Amino acid sequence: MEIKELLKQVRAGEIELERAEELLKSFPYEDLGYAKLDHHRGLRTGFRETIFCEGKPDEYLVQIYKKFYDRDGEVFGTRASEKQYQLVKEAIPEVTFDSVSRILKVEKEKKRIGKIAVCTGGTADVPVAEEAAQTAEYFGSCVDRIYDVGVAGIHRLLNQRERLEKVNCIIAVAGMEGALGTVVAGLVDCPVIAVPTSIGYGASFHGVAALLTMLNSCANGIAVVNIDNGYGAGYLATQINRLAEKNSNK
Amino acid sequence: MEIKELLKQVRAGEIELERAEELLKSFPYEDLGYAKLDHHRGLRTGFRETIFCEGKPDEYLVQIYKKFYDRDGEVFGTRASEKQYQLVKEAIPEVTFDSVSRILKVEKEKKRIGKIAVCTGGTADVPVAEEAAQTAEYFGSCVDRIYDVGVAGIHRLLNQRERLEKVNCIIAVAGMEGALGTVVAGLVDCPVIAVPTSIGYGASFHGVAALLTMLNSCANGIAVVNIDNGYGAGYLATQINRLAEKNSNK
Amino acid sequence: MEIKELLKQVRAGEIELERAEELLKSFPYEDLGYAKLDHHRGLRTGFRETIFCEGKPDEYLVQIYKKFYDRDGEVFGTRASEKQYQLVKEAIPEVTFDSVSRILKVEKEKKRIGKIAVCTGGTADVPVAEEAAQTAEYFGSCVDRIYDVGVAGIHRLLNQRERLEKVNCIIAVAGMEGALGTVVAGLVDCPVIAVPTSIGYGASFHGVAALLTMLNSCANGIAVVNIDNGYGAGYLATQINRLAEKNSNK
Amino acid sequence: MEIKELLKQVRAGEIELERAEELLKSFPYEDLGYAKLDHHRGLRTGFRETIFCEGKPDEYLVQIYKKFYDRDGEVFGTRASEKQYQLVKEAIPEVTFDSVSRILKVEKEKKRIGKIAVCTGGTADVPVAEEAAQTAEYFGSCVDRIYDVGVAGIHRLLNQRERLEKVNCIIAVAGMEGALGTVVAGLVDCPVIAVPTSIGYGASFHGVAALLTMLNSCANGIAVVNIDNGYGAGYLATQINRLAEKNSNK
Amino acid sequence: MEIKELLKQVRAGEIELERAEELLKSFPYEDLGYAKLDHHRGLRTGFRETIFCEGKPDEYLVQIYKKFYDRDGEVFGTRASEKQYQLVKEAIPEVTFDSVSRILKVEKEKKRIGKIAVCTGGTADVPVAEEAAQTAEYFGSCVDRIYDVGVAGIHRLLNQRERLEKVNCIIAVAGMEGALGTVVAGLVDCPVIAVPTSIGYGASFHGVAALLTMLNSCANGIAVVNIDNGYGAGYLATQINRLAEKNSNK
Amino acid sequence: MEIKELLKQVRAGEIELERAEELLKSFPYEDLGYAKLDHHRGLRTGFRETIFCEGKPDEYLVQIYKKFYDRDGEVFGTRASEKQYQLVKEAIPEVTFDSVSRILKVEKEKKRIGKIAVCTGGTADVPVAEEAAQTAEYFGSCVDRIYDVGVAGIHRLLNQRERLEKVNCIIAVAGMEGALGTVVAGLVDCPVIAVPTSIGYGASFHGVAALLTMLNSCANGIAVVNIDNGYGAGYLATQINRLAEKNSNK
Amino acid sequence: MEIKELLKQVRAGEIELERAEELLKSFPYEDLGYAKLDHHRGLRTGFRETIFCEGKPDEYLVQIYKKFYDRDGEVFGTRASEKQYQLVKEAIPEVTFDSVSRILKVEKEKKRIGKIAVCTGGTADVPVAEEAAQTAEYFGSCVDRIYDVGVAGIHRLLNQRERLEKVNCIIAVAGMEGALGTVVAGLVDCPVIAVPTSIGYGASFHGVAALLTMLNSCANGIAVVNIDNGYGAGYLATQINRLAEKNSNK
Amino acid sequence: MEIKELLKQVRAGEIELERAEELLKSFPYEDLGYAKLDHHRGLRTGFRETIFCEGKPDEYLVQIYKKFYDRDGEVFGTRASEKQYQLVKEAIPEVTFDSVSRILKVEKEKKRIGKIAVCTGGTADVPVAEEAAQTAEYFGSCVDRIYDVGVAGIHRLLNQRERLEKVNCIIAVAGMEGALGTVVAGLVDCPVIAVPTSIGYGASFHGVAALLTMLNSCANGIAVVNIDNGYGAGYLATQINRLAEKNSNK
Repeated sequence: MEIKELLKQVRAGEIELERAEELLKSFPYEDLGYAKLDHHRGLRTGFRETIFCEGKPDEYLVQIYKKFYDRDGEVFGTRASEKQYQLVKEAIPEVTFDSVSRILKVEKEKKRIGKIAVCTGGTADVPVAEEAAQTAEYFGSCVDRIYDVGVAGIHRLLNQRERLEKVNCIIAVAGMEGALGTVVAGLVDCPVIAVPTSIGYGASFHGVAALLTMLNSCANGIAVVNIDNGYGAGYLATQINRLAEKNSNK
Repeated sequence: MEIKELLKQVRAGEIELERAEELLKSFPYEDLGYAKLDHHRGLRTGFRETIFCEGKPDEYLVQIYKKFYDRDGEVFGTRASEKQYQLVKEAIPEVTFDSVSRILKVEKEKKRIGKIAVCTGGTADVPVAEEAAQTAEYFGSCVDRIYDVGVAGIHRLLNQRERLEKVNCIIAVAGMEGALGTVVAGLVDCPVIAVPTSIGYGASFHGVAALLTMLNSCANGIAVVNIDNGYGAGYLATQINRLAEKNSNK
Repeated sequence: MEIKELLKQVRAGEIELERAEELLKSFPYEDLGYAKLDHHRGLRTGFRETIFCEGKPDEYLVQIYKKFYDRDGEVFGTRASEKQYQLVKEAIPEVTFDSVSRILKVEKEKKRIGKIAVCTGGTADVPVAEEAAQTAEYFGSCVDRIYDVGVAGIHRLLNQRERLEKVNCIIAVAGMEGALGTVVAGLVDCPVIAVPTSIGYGASFHGVAALLTMLNSCANGIAVVNIDNGYGAGYLATQINRLAEKNSNK
Repeated sequence: MEIKELLKQVRAGEIELERAEELLKSFPYEDLGYAKLDHHRGLRTGFRETIFCEGKPDEYLVQIYKKFYDRDGEVFGTRASEKQYQLVKEAIPEVTFDSVSRILKVEKEKKRIGKIAVCTGGTADVPVAEEAAQTAEYFGSCVDRIYDVGVAGIHRLLNQRERLEKVNCIIAVAGMEGALGTVVAGLVDCPVIAVPTSIGYGASFHGVAALLTMLNSCANGIAVVNIDNGYGAGYLATQINRLAEKNSNK
Repeated sequence: MEIKELLKQVRAGEIELERAEELLKSFPYEDLGYAKLDHHRGLRTGFRETIFCEGKPDEYLVQIYKKFYDRDGEVFGTRASEKQYQLVKEAIPEVTFDSVSRILKVEKEKKRIGKIAVCTGGTADVPVAEEAAQTAEYFGSCVDRIYDVGVAGIHRLLNQRERLEKVNCIIAVAGMEGALGTVVAGLVDCPVIAVPTSIGYGASFHGVAALLTMLNSCANGIAVVNIDNGYGAGYLATQINRLAEKNSNK
Repeated sequence: MEIKELLKQVRAGEIELERAEELLKSFPYEDLGYAKLDHHRGLRTGFRETIFCEGKPDEYLVQIYKKFYDRDGEVFGTRASEKQYQLVKEAIPEVTFDSVSRILKVEKEKKRIGKIAVCTGGTADVPVAEEAAQTAEYFGSCVDRIYDVGVAGIHRLLNQRERLEKVNCIIAVAGMEGALGTVVAGLVDCPVIAVPTSIGYGASFHGVAALLTMLNSCANGIAVVNIDNGYGAGYLATQINRLAEKNSNK
Repeated sequence: MEIKELLKQVRAGEIELERAEELLKSFPYEDLGYAKLDHHRGLRTGFRETIFCEGKPDEYLVQIYKKFYDRDGEVFGTRASEKQYQLVKEAIPEVTFDSVSRILKVEKEKKRIGKIAVCTGGTADVPVAEEAAQTAEYFGSCVDRIYDVGVAGIHRLLNQRERLEKVNCIIAVAGMEGALGTVVAGLVDCPVIAVPTSIGYGASFHGVAALLTMLNSCANGIAVVNIDNGYGAGYLATQINRLAEKNSNK
Repeated sequence: MEIKELLKQVRAGEIELERAEELLKSFPYEDLGYAKLDHHRGLRTGFRETIFCEGKPDEYLVQIYKKFYDRDGEVFGTRASEKQYQLVKEAIPEVTFDSVSRILKVEKEKKRIGKIAVCTGGTADVPVAEEAAQTAEYFGSCVDRIYDVGVAGIHRLLNQRERLEKVNCIIAVAGMEGALGTVVAGLVDCPVIAVPTSIGYGASFHGVAALLTMLNSCANGIAVVNIDNGYGAGYLATQINRLAEKNSNK
């Protein structure tokens, strides 16, 4: 209900003043005390709220999964552990867990549109890449996975050029020196979302080296998310993918 | 000329083997020794190459501006100084300089499409915001400027909500604590590009505090570019804006 | 006994010179060798000494709890572990332990005055918030808990505005990008104590990102304590709350 | 006008629907395009908006000073330069400038209440201390200045104990190792606001050493503001001072 | 044997040329391949070589302890674990282990001279302080332990003033904000060796905050060793103590 | 096959156009999906691809070892664990594991040429040194090991001068203050590769102190690899060693 | 006057109670408002107070120099500029300025005792070394200067061994990789004070690399002062030198 | 003269004992007090000593240039300024200065051998690249310059592949994200020396981002020197180049 509609009801005496005041002040969310769940987000934006599992107390986690699942029939969480999977499974037997991406979800079948690509520099970056890819798929994007194409063996990447040119957005996932994003952005004309990973040792400082590389990219059309933030990249890529496809069936 | 076409010419004997070899190896760019100019980029992608003026030796800068202007009839550079403006002006009298954005350019009239928004946290962030806005305009985006809407006075931002909901992409420019991007991304459903600025003092560490804030955003649909990199944000926002508009006139 | 009183006794010959010298040099505390306990602090300031449990050797910890409990009938410690709770319980069966706040205490009933609010950005910040809230309650403040009102969904916070306007001091607890403090301080006119938490990953650097955000706040009336220092915030908020209430019953 | 009042007018038909909608959406501020001035803040909170002069373009600065002065009859800015003083003076001849604190203001006479203390570790910290002290005075606090009482000569501080015990709040300003705040907070029972300064060299890292010292204080009742942020400390101290005095004349 | 003496023997034909060459090139140490033990150091300087146990492979550790013990009848190692103690004990039953200081040694009775003081800010700093104190005692210094005299309760330190004035050198051990060294150095006239400890949390950064505080001390006569380096402080304090006592019995 | 050769075949009609196009685009590697193995590297450069074992999922690791071993008859991996050794051993019984260097390999007998030296500052640096030494040996270099010659006892290093002067390249491995590289480079005229190790504590910051020391070396002829990167140093030293020996048997 | 003496006077009625109270509370220093000068320090310790000139306002600086000079007949300041020299010279014509060490002083002739050495790694470290050397001389130490003996050419240092063995304390001044202190401490048995300098570029981070090197020294008997803190090193070395000489003329 | 020879002379009585002792202790260098010049280095190694001009006092600089030039007939310095050039020119009219590389030298004609390549990522990296190239030429290497081949436009680099494959060593100079070294090392089999430059802004942190990228390179055969250290790279590349060519004319 828009403000103006509400005001019309007020003038028409169709609504109590107290009720109108309350509505004007409130946005819809469910308050569990320790958490405030935004159920209407999915309706409004097409992106349902997601659960960051890591560090959530067991009891809270199960409750939150249950709340979402009961209302929406699906639920999606990242950074889950095997142990959390077992706990949630007791409450929601349909839940599935992917030990690589650490995604814990119940997903309804849905139509996927457009296409994004997810690349990695190495094999060790695959878990973060899968978090990105599966997030994008959950929110309705088709995903092309192009793994282990790091710039130290540039021919592996160059061979994938055609696939890279067919997507609306590319997610470049890399640890260590993190140069993948720059080279990819130099090869294509679509937006590139760079995800530094904490893969590496010594002066990689748990992903800081890759993060700085990506922030300082001398290529155009590239932006960066937090270290290991595959979820954020998958979400943003889907927003871009949707924008690119929004008029495609006119 | 595609590889296959070339190979057909080779088989047909229409081309020297040496020449074919050379073409297969080369991509088109102009080599000045100290620089290799990519003239075909603009044709290929719709994004002409841009000049980063800061620190370029005077002689090189004027030459590069001249090369681009002579061939394309327009030229666009960022981070220019008043002194560089005077130098380039002697060679290209049509060049204009905006002392706020520090953009030095000759721009041909062109049609602008779609819309992006550029917001700032404070007045001091305006120069970076203008670099972003004018870059986006140069590459063909309509821009809505929404300045001085920092989160310490949240009502100023909330009042702009309607404008924010009408664009394909938002650039959020902020220094000091840099929280603007998170709040904006929480209000809208389009991609948000966050630009930390070096505005601040003490523990802002020349923009590092704002950068970290943006990387750690708990909002969805947000990515970050380098500190003060208005140009990069304007470029990426335009890529997204174009994707959103590409099917709009079908 | 004040210096002047002591000097009067000296002149009157009511006290030995050696004794007077000793008293002039000494302040009252109990010396255990490895620790010097300040028993009189509570009498003097209304704030009894608190025990930081983490890292204390088992034997020392139990002794110190016992010393305080025996004299004061109450004792308050932070950052305790389940194991430490079991140890202290053997010596002091009345002791209670809250596994969320990690506070280990025996608390006498007392009248609480005034009111402070404790807010968190997310559910994961609740342990630090509870350390703050329970500390404030132990020292005699009424506390209003307002949890999971992070700025990425600004409407959740705006809905609590009325509660925020009714308190003498607000503690804003947040990890990740840590912007809660700034937005809160922009909404109210009372002092805001910002507590960064170590919640986050990657470029949050165990709370450093939130800390910097808070230090660089462009809002007025805000100060910061160490990462995860709920205790310090609860203490300071109580000092302010007491000042605000000191003349209230005249 | 409160929401309920407005709604009553709507029902009574005393106001146009469009006008009511506009009012419900707007908060009062003046929009200069590059800045949004919050004139009503002073009325609402007793703290008028302050101008951070450093880095403001000359033209903007003079305009903003003029706007505030014309409406309020007083205006207060920090981090001004001698050159800015000369510029503003042309527009507002009554303006005064203190080259130590760098405060540029027109101040109406007003009654000051309560008392706060401002201490410094050394002589070099005085400019930041004066920014704090004069800010507090502008907002209506009495201030006791206690300078050059650094902890390397602890007797200088101990001698001021009586003065320290008479105030509602203490601001401790120190650079280099920044230990002043801890020792002060150990001596008194009122809140201590610690301000690290950028005074020092080498491993002081422009105030970071002092900042860390203060954040890690093992004293109770202490919080920290940004490096060199005298203004923020003076503002917060005044909030606390007002709370302490609010019921004092009942 | 001095070079000149050797040359005399050469001229006199009392020594083989090959032998002389070898001696001129060699300094005395024992080569175990993975380690080169300097047995003569103790004879030369009065400071025997010490073993840093942490991270030494079990087999190497036992061998090295045995080598030293067999030749010198005593042996001294720091940062040992309970497990290493058990291992070495099998080879050298006389070895003793102090679980607080983590020193693993066989020590011959020896006369101690002069006096140094070891102070700590808190109880948690005692392990590092004991490493310093026992090192100093092993190398022959008398030690006065003054623990838990942190600057947040300055009276505890001031009460110890007389003891502090009676020593040749003071070791100040402190974590968190690390201000102890500065206050101590301001009270006395002898050299102060400051040892930052890794005690603390959050922005203490495992001792970096305390280290910076100590390096930036505004007191005179103070120098710093590495974080938690009690051994280094005890060694250096003993060097100074010996210098102070070297002529004392003439 | 070179491009020119291919083109000749095209003209001669000896090859399909589609096949030629494919070959021109492809470089030879084997695609496992999660990894792209470069089998031809060894043939081309004499350096076979190496496996970084740490963090590789068990299943992937065994597969990759098997692939390489089956084709080449040898395989070489670094940073392996005892557990990984057991896993690979089931698939390849010939595999050997060195718990010091953590190298897991099957190595064919080969002729070694030239000579390099590997030095360490202390005993604790030996594991990294062994990774370097065994890598160099695997790739065909003779290695002279000179361990525990840190600069705090400079005579131990000076005694090895003759050995240092007989090699083509020196690897200097050191943690803590990391000064070994500088002193070695000052003694010899061959290239020195400095390897910082993470050995140390406190302000060594896991090898950063040693890394900075080496980067700032005031000696000539020295370059640095990542912290603990023995493999990289051994590889580079072998490249240099081969260059030095390439014409030696003409 | 000692406390006991004072108390005797009190009992004897020889002193007013108010006066006694005042004396008990006060330590002697002169209060200029912006500074509190400790005139008695020199009498008490033999180390007069020193002036850190950098950043002192002109007016304050001249006043402070005058105050000290008038009472003591000598005065000593560090980090002075040529301009400050000219200013002070007007007030005190006898003042002298050394542009290398930047020491501005009037020094009375005095007897020097014992001996310390000041070494530098390179020529660029000489200014800091001279600050140390001249400070030590001002406070009464004989100084042996040994410059440009950096460890990249170790023979230059080894040649000075005899001189190094004749002193009570050595100050090792070095920038860039800062390894001088470690090698020196390995050669001698007296205390070594290491002074990192800000000489260097790139990853020297204005002296941080040298500072870390020195803190992580694997030599015994070494401690560190702040970057470029020649004064602090000269002061501490003199304290040690005095201790070593205190009984020398018995 | 070797030690054994000397000893033979001693036995034969052909040399004074005092003289022999002196010789055994001394290495040849010239002591200017503030500097110790190593004239024999050039004879011994083929690499004459080089002067780092930046920050050298004018008087010292001219003296040192004169000393080297007078004895060797050539002299080579880096990081010189225009002003230093003018000063040295007065003493040595033959001296030349290159304002791009900032090299100030007199160079005798000499034969150059082998070949190294110097690449840059961008035009702004040319000054550092020229320091490297001219250093290598001065020490006798042929140099192939390949500039502006950054990885954001990978085709520019791929086109140079043939030139890269013909050299003994490659120097890769790059700022901003610094990925050039990795891609180059992946293309060739010779050693690559990576030089980070301070070119960039914001999160490039004056070259730190590029430095970290290079240290974390996932390519083989790469090592790193300090930020902007073109000289060090040119020196090391020449050592490698000489090794590669040493047997080439047999």
